[in-house]
Amino acid sequence: MTASRNLRIAVLGVGMMGADHVTRITSTISGARVAVVNDYVVEKAARLAATIPGCRVVEDPLDAIADPDVDAVLLATPGPAHEKQLLACLEHGKPVMCEKPLTTDVATSLEVVAREAELGTKLIQVGFMRRFDPEYRQLAALLHSGQLGRPLLLHCIHRNVSVPPHFDSAMIVKDSLVHEVDVTRFLLNEEISSVQIITPRPNPRAPEGLRDPQIALFTTTSGMHVDVEVFVTTGVAYEVRTEVVGESGSAMIGLDVGLIRTSTPGIRSGRITRTFTERFGQAYDIEIQRWVDAVRSGFRTGNYIDGPDAWDGYAAAAVCAAGVESLETGERVTVEMVQRSSIRSPDDR
Amino acid sequence: MTASRNLRIAVLGVGMMGADHVTRITSTISGARVAVVNDYVVEKAARLAATIPGCRVVEDPLDAIADPDVDAVLLATPGPAHEKQLLACLEHGKPVMCEKPLTTDVATSLEVVAREAELGTKLIQVGFMRRFDPEYRQLAALLHSGQLGRPLLLHCIHRNVSVPPHFDSAMIVKDSLVHEVDVTRFLLNEEISSVQIITPRPNPRAPEGLRDPQIALFTTTSGMHVDVEVFVTTGVAYEVRTEVVGESGSAMIGLDVGLIRTSTPGIRSGRITRTFTERFGQAYDIEIQRWVDAVRSGFRTGNYIDGPDAWDGYAAAAVCAAGVESLETGERVTVEMVQRSSIRSPDDR
Amino acid sequence: MTASRNLRIAVLGVGMMGADHVTRITSTISGARVAVVNDYVVEKAARLAATIPGCRVVEDPLDAIADPDVDAVLLATPGPAHEKQLLACLEHGKPVMCEKPLTTDVATSLEVVAREAELGTKLIQVGFMRRFDPEYRQLAALLHSGQLGRPLLLHCIHRNVSVPPHFDSAMIVKDSLVHEVDVTRFLLNEEISSVQIITPRPNPRAPEGLRDPQIALFTTTSGMHVDVEVFVTTGVAYEVRTEVVGESGSAMIGLDVGLIRTSTPGIRSGRITRTFTERFGQAYDIEIQRWVDAVRSGFRTGNYIDGPDAWDGYAAAAVCAAGVESLETGERVTVEMVQRSSIRSPDDR
Amino acid sequence: MTASRNLRIAVLGVGMMGADHVTRITSTISGARVAVVNDYVVEKAARLAATIPGCRVVEDPLDAIADPDVDAVLLATPGPAHEKQLLACLEHGKPVMCEKPLTTDVATSLEVVAREAELGTKLIQVGFMRRFDPEYRQLAALLHSGQLGRPLLLHCIHRNVSVPPHFDSAMIVKDSLVHEVDVTRFLLNEEISSVQIITPRPNPRAPEGLRDPQIALFTTTSGMHVDVEVFVTTGVAYEVRTEVVGESGSAMIGLDVGLIRTSTPGIRSGRITRTFTERFGQAYDIEIQRWVDAVRSGFRTGNYIDGPDAWDGYAAAAVCAAGVESLETGERVTVEMVQRSSIRSPDDR
Repeated sequence: MTASRNLRIAVLGVGMMGADHVTRITSTISGARVAVVNDYVVEKAARLAATIPGCRVVEDPLDAIADPDVDAVLLATPGPAHEKQLLACLEHGKPVMCEKPLTTDVATSLEVVAREAELGTKLIQVGFMRRFDPEYRQLAALLHSGQLGRPLLLHCIHRNVSVPPHFDSAMIVKDSLVHEVDVTRFLLNEEISSVQIITPRPNPRAPEGLRDPQIALFTTTSGMHVDVEVFVTTGVAYEVRTEVVGESGSAMIGLDVGLIRTSTPGIRSGRITRTFTERFGQAYDIEIQRWVDAVRSGFRTGNYIDGPDAWDGYAAAAVCAAGVESLETGERVTVEMVQRSSIRSPDDR
Repeated sequence: MTASRNLRIAVLGVGMMGADHVTRITSTISGARVAVVNDYVVEKAARLAATIPGCRVVEDPLDAIADPDVDAVLLATPGPAHEKQLLACLEHGKPVMCEKPLTTDVATSLEVVAREAELGTKLIQVGFMRRFDPEYRQLAALLHSGQLGRPLLLHCIHRNVSVPPHFDSAMIVKDSLVHEVDVTRFLLNEEISSVQIITPRPNPRAPEGLRDPQIALFTTTSGMHVDVEVFVTTGVAYEVRTEVVGESGSAMIGLDVGLIRTSTPGIRSGRITRTFTERFGQAYDIEIQRWVDAVRSGFRTGNYIDGPDAWDGYAAAAVCAAGVESLETGERVTVEMVQRSSIRSPDDR
Repeated sequence: MTASRNLRIAVLGVGMMGADHVTRITSTISGARVAVVNDYVVEKAARLAATIPGCRVVEDPLDAIADPDVDAVLLATPGPAHEKQLLACLEHGKPVMCEKPLTTDVATSLEVVAREAELGTKLIQVGFMRRFDPEYRQLAALLHSGQLGRPLLLHCIHRNVSVPPHFDSAMIVKDSLVHEVDVTRFLLNEEISSVQIITPRPNPRAPEGLRDPQIALFTTTSGMHVDVEVFVTTGVAYEVRTEVVGESGSAMIGLDVGLIRTSTPGIRSGRITRTFTERFGQAYDIEIQRWVDAVRSGFRTGNYIDGPDAWDGYAAAAVCAAGVESLETGERVTVEMVQRSSIRSPDDR
Repeated sequence: MTASRNLRIAVLGVGMMGADHVTRITSTISGARVAVVNDYVVEKAARLAATIPGCRVVEDPLDAIADPDVDAVLLATPGPAHEKQLLACLEHGKPVMCEKPLTTDVATSLEVVAREAELGTKLIQVGFMRRFDPEYRQLAALLHSGQLGRPLLLHCIHRNVSVPPHFDSAMIVKDSLVHEVDVTRFLLNEEISSVQIITPRPNPRAPEGLRDPQIALFTTTSGMHVDVEVFVTTGVAYEVRTEVVGESGSAMIGLDVGLIRTSTPGIRSGRITRTFTERFGQAYDIEIQRWVDAVRSGFRTGNYIDGPDAWDGYAAAAVCAAGVESLETGERVTVEMVQRSSIRSPDDR
């Protein structure tokens, strides 16, 4: 592609997340447009395409990936479809932004990692948007500055107002806790070696059978401790808070996001965020803009990603698998992962 | 008195403020007891005395002051009674804690200052309790440390939930603004040289005719600027906030007093203080304890006060008088004060 | 233009502000590109154009405005050039985003307003970016909700780390205070009827002769009071804070922007913003994206702006002119403005 | 004793804590005086007694307890001395404020509880001062109000700047964590049924062999989850923070205690508390004043305590014993306690 032409993106899956990305690419992102949309429900894709200038529907996701007028792919399909679609992207050399999860199990995630490694080019970026959130980036920068010394502990809070009716206890691990898994790996710059899930007395407001809240405990390879409260039926707010405790000091983010200080009779208050799009909207914008920029320059430089890669998706899958096992047993479970060095990564040649 | 005997205090005036001090001395303060109470309404004094072990009523305030079994006096009578009672205290050599105002006009305040100066001993302390509040003291210490450089500006906020029905616009100056006058003099360590009161569109919830809120502007002798919002019918909270802006930085107190951070559906909030006793209860306790300690050791050392003195009361009266004049004219009014050096103060001999 | 084509913008003036907008349009904004750059220093324009795909230099600003391959104009030239360039935009029917000031004096600002009114189409938007800042928008929404009652008072703080060497006392009014003028008009939804500038003892760190800090007092047409601290040589931070006090409550923004809470030996701290681009970068992004969107749809709808208009620029000029006069006299100065109804605005037909 | 006479207290043990209480009773508390001091190091007691009017040394602690001119006892001796001294207080019917621990092991603590129960009168109060801290009381009141629903989770942070050289890993449980044990029981109003201590990679600044930080996990009888970070060699601050998460909302205390907001070049900061006396000084004052008041009225009412009792001391000992066991094994340990109903408490007759 030429430098001045807009990147032509195929968005596969236009549920809430995918549709949000279509709007983002169309209205907010510089240098890209949605050229193709695809969804299992064809009518949904068609309705959306009709509102986007120059956008058409391709009914088969693999055709969309192979389409010569598609420069890059954004994968927002359900998890079970990811493996096949990612492998198709690799086959056709198409850069792809894959919403989490990479795939739905550890073995297929590793397979995707290995296939990309054989290719010698990183084409897959995984959609852990928090890495682009200004607060998380400031916290990461502070850690890297050494001002807090090496980290010893990490405390995470992850609260949602509510979850869809079909949400089950394992999904709390795979869909909610997974973000804290990535935050841990990103901030501490180590792998997670074991996981334990504790399920206290459940919230009576949670749907029957849902173990909510959950407390997750991680140990990292060097022996740091991480605890996470995941509580997805608070009825209160979307509240994501992270405190890192280092050898020389501590730092916290996420306490006051979006607050006006209002004083009304007897209370001082502030509206708090209710949705993840409100809390992380800016992070998504930055994530997608930087990915588009990376892909555009990638056709020249050979580097198509600017963020978490397939390995990060594999590692998250391995930790979550251990988490789901612990959810059943209540015991601490060791995370089973291959050594990164065992993967013939393009970087290693 | 001997070191181990409790200081015997006569409390004159047992309205809300005086009664509060009686309780404080009886239940909270070490080394003192209320020996005598007095009030214009004798029955009120009698009812109160009956609840305090070893306390009796003296019907004439001047008799109470003169009483040989009274070591010190706490004056919580209405302002117009102060002049005569203070002069009696001076005459009988009785240490006295005088609730603001010193007297009700500038001339008599100066007269009291002069009479005490002739005596060669400071017996009068004035009840500006904020000087004992831990936050104000921390702010004063920060200023004196030089970390902020010399101050340039002071912003004050003084908000009440409501005022009694008889409160008029001049009382906002004399009863509310007067605290900010003392805070200004205390923090900036300079006299106030001019005052302007601005009266914006009044709060429709304020009683008919009350100019509320008011904005007061002070200039100090070296040219610092002070602005004060006084708003006494907010219906919201008792909110006292002070920000000093110096040549090298700024500092603020009073923003979050008394807050628990509560997250409930959609809002993060905290209860805020509604009364001055809640906000400054600890300051009153410290003020009276330190005064009692000073008086007890004063019989040995000759120094009977530990806080703002009669001159501070006079200066506040002079500034408030200029404020009341400005309230009428809207113009900036110069504060008329004698030079402190013209007073033959005991310190100067 | 067709819906799918990018808007072709000519950026006139590529100093710090203009160059920042060129980067923004090129890298962040959806649906637009910089087609033409122009600067008094031609080499500067040429160097910049060379880095932007499809961008060329046009040496004469009026040629750039007239260019048929330019859809819209962004004016970041020095203030004295604005009048002529704005009139050219009106003549050629080119939508224009004009960085403040509209023009450098009240009379020519009014002339621009009148000429646009005759045209019957609003083409001019003025770059008061704070109206797009999420915090200010939340505050405005809160005010409009009625939860605080009608506003009575507005307190504004505007602090800069430093200013360029040539900055003089009147520029504090025209370049810094002007933002608070617009914020006042935007939040209170009234015109400012009088202005007074108070100049306390100046900061010794300010350049010789610079009256800094300044205190500005505004009265609005209905009698609300506004006070503003403008202090542009703090050496500390870029700190913009706004508190509105209403009949039923108050609200404040700007206190904690950009804070991580860090605990290190003896202090809890957070980095604070040092530059206006850090504080208002997001506001600029939103401002320009919404303007681009409005202009693109404007060729269909006839409405080319989405934000403050020429009248807002004129009103700000009138208030600042009164401010500069007050800076000299120290007196309260009445703002001289025509009635808005005297302008034959396109809206009124 | 008569209502007007000061309570005569014997303070046993005048190390840091005991000496602090002697000063408190002498200078701050109303209605009491230190009549007797005692210490293993007689000279230390003698030096202190010499500074307190009317205070004498009694060399044998049991004589001090038995002394007819002692109305009540404050026990600040080392833990191993407590059992014998508490039993002596019971024998002589002397009300006693016992600094933690009640005794040094679970069996003797239970013995003390049982002996007091046989007596039919509660004479023993245990010095868990946090129950008197205004923030904790506000949090408890909020919980009891039902506004947050029933609690589900409790997160506690307990950080010290440093510890004495002899401090070992078990003392972190028994001397530091013990406060969080009491806070848990106080706020959640349930017993703790199991404890697990996790020891992550230790702080390299901690003395050789000290497992610091430690993470403690509690389960309560109804299945609530509590996690505590105890980190006693931070080098940073004395930071005690508590967040309760309920079915309808959450609340946090301890985040900003003692903060002035200071803005200096590039950072906004506040001094944070370095010592527990600074953080909990007011709590100690309230605790001792209320205990003195209770004892004074107790000679009339038969109720000599106003705060945590011997059972609370026993329960804390039982939880800490389980904690020390878990510290060694790393496993979750069940707390072994008798049923409260098995104690023939005076309340039950």
